Amino acid sequence: MTNARLTVKQPCGSEREIERRSFIKGALAAALGSACGGASASELAGPIAGRDWWPSKWGAGDQAAASNYMTPEKVIEAVGLVKSGKVYNLGRPYEQGMPFFPGRGFSLRIPGNPTLGPLGSNKLIAHEEFLATEIGQVGTQFDGLAHIGIEMDGPDNNAEKRFYNGMSLSEIRGAYGFKKLGVEHVKPFVCPSVLFDIKALKGRNLRRGEEIMVSDLISALERQGLKESDFGTGDVALVRTGWGDQWMVDNKSYYDGEPGPGLDATQWLIDRGASLIAADNWAVEVIPSPDPDLSYPVHQLSLTKHGVYLFENIQLDELAEDEVYKAAFFFSPLPIKGATGSPGNPIVIG
Amino acid sequence: MTNARLTVKQPCGSEREIERRSFIKGALAAALGSACGGASASELAGPIAGRDWWPSKWGAGDQAAASNYMTPEKVIEAVGLVKSGKVYNLGRPYEQGMPFFPGRGFSLRIPGNPTLGPLGSNKLIAHEEFLATEIGQVGTQFDGLAHIGIEMDGPDNNAEKRFYNGMSLSEIRGAYGFKKLGVEHVKPFVCPSVLFDIKALKGRNLRRGEEIMVSDLISALERQGLKESDFGTGDVALVRTGWGDQWMVDNKSYYDGEPGPGLDATQWLIDRGASLIAADNWAVEVIPSPDPDLSYPVHQLSLTKHGVYLFENIQLDELAEDEVYKAAFFFSPLPIKGATGSPGNPIVIG
Amino acid sequence: MTNARLTVKQPCGSEREIERRSFIKGALAAALGSACGGASASELAGPIAGRDWWPSKWGAGDQAAASNYMTPEKVIEAVGLVKSGKVYNLGRPYEQGMPFFPGRGFSLRIPGNPTLGPLGSNKLIAHEEFLATEIGQVGTQFDGLAHIGIEMDGPDNNAEKRFYNGMSLSEIRGAYGFKKLGVEHVKPFVCPSVLFDIKALKGRNLRRGEEIMVSDLISALERQGLKESDFGTGDVALVRTGWGDQWMVDNKSYYDGEPGPGLDATQWLIDRGASLIAADNWAVEVIPSPDPDLSYPVHQLSLTKHGVYLFENIQLDELAEDEVYKAAFFFSPLPIKGATGSPGNPIVIG
Amino acid sequence: MTNARLTVKQPCGSEREIERRSFIKGALAAALGSACGGASASELAGPIAGRDWWPSKWGAGDQAAASNYMTPEKVIEAVGLVKSGKVYNLGRPYEQGMPFFPGRGFSLRIPGNPTLGPLGSNKLIAHEEFLATEIGQVGTQFDGLAHIGIEMDGPDNNAEKRFYNGMSLSEIRGAYGFKKLGVEHVKPFVCPSVLFDIKALKGRNLRRGEEIMVSDLISALERQGLKESDFGTGDVALVRTGWGDQWMVDNKSYYDGEPGPGLDATQWLIDRGASLIAADNWAVEVIPSPDPDLSYPVHQLSLTKHGVYLFENIQLDELAEDEVYKAAFFFSPLPIKGATGSPGNPIVIG
Repeated sequence: MTNARLTVKQPCGSEREIERRSFIKGALAAALGSACGGASASELAGPIAGRDWWPSKWGAGDQAAASNYMTPEKVIEAVGLVKSGKVYNLGRPYEQGMPFFPGRGFSLRIPGNPTLGPLGSNKLIAHEEFLATEIGQVGTQFDGLAHIGIEMDGPDNNAEKRFYNGMSLSEIRGAYGFKKLGVEHVKPFVCPSVLFDIKALKGRNLRRGEEIMVSDLISALERQGLKESDFGTGDVALVRTGWGDQWMVDNKSYYDGEPGPGLDATQWLIDRGASLIAADNWAVEVIPSPDPDLSYPVHQLSLTKHGVYLFENIQLDELAEDEVYKAAFFFSPLPIKGATGSPGNPIVIG
Repeated sequence: MTNARLTVKQPCGSEREIERRSFIKGALAAALGSACGGASASELAGPIAGRDWWPSKWGAGDQAAASNYMTPEKVIEAVGLVKSGKVYNLGRPYEQGMPFFPGRGFSLRIPGNPTLGPLGSNKLIAHEEFLATEIGQVGTQFDGLAHIGIEMDGPDNNAEKRFYNGMSLSEIRGAYGFKKLGVEHVKPFVCPSVLFDIKALKGRNLRRGEEIMVSDLISALERQGLKESDFGTGDVALVRTGWGDQWMVDNKSYYDGEPGPGLDATQWLIDRGASLIAADNWAVEVIPSPDPDLSYPVHQLSLTKHGVYLFENIQLDELAEDEVYKAAFFFSPLPIKGATGSPGNPIVIG
Repeated sequence: MTNARLTVKQPCGSEREIERRSFIKGALAAALGSACGGASASELAGPIAGRDWWPSKWGAGDQAAASNYMTPEKVIEAVGLVKSGKVYNLGRPYEQGMPFFPGRGFSLRIPGNPTLGPLGSNKLIAHEEFLATEIGQVGTQFDGLAHIGIEMDGPDNNAEKRFYNGMSLSEIRGAYGFKKLGVEHVKPFVCPSVLFDIKALKGRNLRRGEEIMVSDLISALERQGLKESDFGTGDVALVRTGWGDQWMVDNKSYYDGEPGPGLDATQWLIDRGASLIAADNWAVEVIPSPDPDLSYPVHQLSLTKHGVYLFENIQLDELAEDEVYKAAFFFSPLPIKGATGSPGNPIVIG
Repeated sequence: MTNARLTVKQPCGSEREIERRSFIKGALAAALGSACGGASASELAGPIAGRDWWPSKWGAGDQAAASNYMTPEKVIEAVGLVKSGKVYNLGRPYEQGMPFFPGRGFSLRIPGNPTLGPLGSNKLIAHEEFLATEIGQVGTQFDGLAHIGIEMDGPDNNAEKRFYNGMSLSEIRGAYGFKKLGVEHVKPFVCPSVLFDIKALKGRNLRRGEEIMVSDLISALERQGLKESDFGTGDVALVRTGWGDQWMVDNKSYYDGEPGPGLDATQWLIDRGASLIAADNWAVEVIPSPDPDLSYPVHQLSLTKHGVYLFENIQLDELAEDEVYKAAFFFSPLPIKGATGSPGNPIVIG
């Protein structure tokens, strides 16, 4: 269990923190103002400090965020990349024994054997399955916009718990599904994907807490014979760390930290127009955060501030093996009304 | 409630039944032998009477069935159809208020508002959702091979409850997921789809119990400027009946019967190599069955005997409106280990 | 569906409302101050307007509320009432087809047939059941203290959403169970119960919206040969309205209003030391409320202000038939950590 | 995980096994006939070998089994034992972190904070909880009659999978709840309970695999100043082993075996008319079974053959401390239609 990690709160920023944060657009004011003890929004630390990160570039009220990059031109570009016709599954099987973020579960039951029947003189029998789970937040998972926010004015004030596009908890909340920012607003992803094979670059699996830097991303592209410009606006970044090797092998330590891109590398991807950042780990970003005061800051930077989606627990080994570095990516989330994310089996076609 | 329909059993075949069934390959022996009162396998009525329907054409032990049609060549053919780059969602939103087959449900709950947090000096808050449902058998749904079988030797004998490829209930069953024939064995669908717009052909919505005939399929193709050969081996058939207009409009009568292809039309599609038959209704096939002795016979013919998949409750109106008759179809089921089906949002790219 | 009822909000009090409310202790200030448009706590209408209703009489921090009445003396008094030894079940069977408050459900599934086995040379087979439901808020249900509160300072402010003993939502909330006021703090009920057979008093089933008055309670006791003093401190009130006759008979209209005690009758029971008020309807209290501005005010008066528990959807016909008017009552809630209520099958022994 | 244990099957009996089993009424024929390799019912090993164990002594078709002992006389006897009026909770809190039998779970979620509201000018807010779990087979649990059976003719034949009173799986099964033998048929328990404090007798916690013998039961009674005749027909046996000390302390090893009564001690209790056998462990009986060929044989002996109920994971420490050896026991199962068991918080009144 990693509960300890979940409850760590450090009220004040350190000097080192301020330095780190100054790389992050929009966080400067916050960093400067982070005198210890205050509670006002301007003093909040992290990538979405301040209030200048909304409205989003797709307009006030927009709920599709970076899936807006999916234009017909993008689609045409993507299918133009298909050469071999080989289909790669990026999704992992969903099963009861997989590792879980603390508190989540997956209970699949087959009601009766059979569930129904026999019916008719054709003696039909039928089965169903019953599933109880954190559907969009277990296994291979696509993170939507209601998943992550920031508490800007303390735990009591729901009007200042802000999500993508500045929408407040008061505005979006619902016990039976979010009224706004649900995953049903996301447009299907049909676009190029670019592999950043950091595992191959380093020649080893990355380690818990190891941060992927901007230079790693650039070097990975070079190693793969790609240029920086090969990662274009609207493209999907597939980040391979090797952490996924522990899936169903060492489930106990799987959720106890991970390597991944830090705030800088993530910002670099966002600046180049990433629509989605996917990785072979459980939270995309490096855990624990290099800045120990920050908890999942890449989630806030990506989802909350920029509306750039995340995809977790994907498989990239076969793509890497076949050296499919830039190819066509396809994923349409389950339009579960008011959900924070979606399960899925995204595919890449080489 | 339509429970009455589910429990209707008529032990003996009528003359009319025998005539109808004689069209169906493999059912002839059953029909001839259907003297009233018997219980042996050879006397079973319907499309999978007899024992000559296994092993499947993909070999004994195969669990992928018609998804085996998905070859790299098929993929290349599919993406070659992309012209406009416009993406069509065939999936409907999943929501608590949607219509359900009797006994099934969908309970989505948001645990806490928020679920977690605040964490860190970045005051991250996070949400999840909890879902309890017949995951692969509600809403827009892809039917897998463990969904439908036939009871060949009475309710007591699990060794003679047969599924695709002759696999028995004894062989596949499991309380926490099927040991065989789970939906995780299905390969992603990337192939051409062909629309059969029967609604447009008739100039009206089809009615409850109205059977789509082979001639309707052929006429629909003609009307759309396609030839019979335009529906090729491995292609997906998209059947538009208009029944879906009742979705979320008249939920009460939605599951009380429907129009759809009968055994003949389904056999015609299977003979031409359909990998998947999808429709804008809840069971693809015509309900009640024209032969009142048979219950969901198209399910048995398609899934159990031929391993040809079904997709239910899809949306086809936008495709029809844009006259996208043959185009690229993409769907990768959720690989839920041991499940009978999958939810999904298949897309077609015009 | 009765959703309309759930969303009716009327911002300002009418004259009639003020009159009614003046009967209710503690509501007077609110009534006087209810000029339209205000938002401050002092202007809130209803039985728990004002801030003088906490700490509770069992002390600040108490979480057991009226179950504190359950002393050894009370237990001795209760068992002393046993004469015939006949046991009466007050609980209804839990089943998927029962009526539900809008949004709630009950999905019971038997995983596999069997779930496990065979094991050993003794060939043991075993079954389980899987249930997904609003466990403490479906069927026969005991309402705990986290179930009902009051929003004293608008929807945004969690510190002023108050529950029993003045505890705030900020203080008690938890996505996986309430941190305070969970049903696990309730002590088992072993005490006398007194039947108030209003149905027998009126000679008919009470009607939707029919309010039970103080005089009805007193007359019911008289008719049954009891005195007012026969209902003592810590006793359970069993209120029979006849509404339960519709259970599983007319489920559609079951949740569309009901007869029951109003604020006055409830206050009378509370003043006499009721530990629990139970009824053969779904919310104990009269619905719609005689004061159309108030929504479930008896819930607030009883649970939130006074910590007096409610028990809904119980059966009282057999007790009435046998004229078991004062007898021993037994109920121990399921100690589900952090739950808002409990299912149960309370018994009375005559 | 203890899955290995669950799948161990040994087809043939050893000599030692035959000796042990010869103590068990009804198992003799089975023991004599247990030549290796056979499959017929007469060759089955264990406490319910043979077919002479049905109909039950309460008549063919009876579904209440040992709860039939609960007569008005029994109730009067029980309440006559009340002296101090002190109430003892035997139930443990239900919580997500408790130990589970492999494959089972408990997911409690609070939908929204709040779930509903504000409603009315009284600004009512309301909460519910959502629970997904093996309701009758987690935590403190009462085992009903559909829980355990015997496979008499191999895995394929549902007509020879037998339960209490000889009822077959074909007869009782249902995907949404058992058609027969559901826990709703059990009558509330109001009767004397007798504590068998084996922990105190031994002066230590019993160990994994340590069998409680008949002599232990008798010695425990003596130590407590009771006679054998103090445990009467219809009484509840409360067996204290000390195993429960690991609950929420060492959850990992909790389900990996336990001490408890063996077949002989259980038969002794049954012969004296036990209505229910309860223990402070997870399966009442000693695990692993002293006869390694047998899996949970006490479950079959008690539930299947004799219809004597089991209650698991109860707390007995306070009773032992107060030396409440014979007292009044109260428990009414949740009448969940078609369930295999019930959660509960049984109480004893001293």
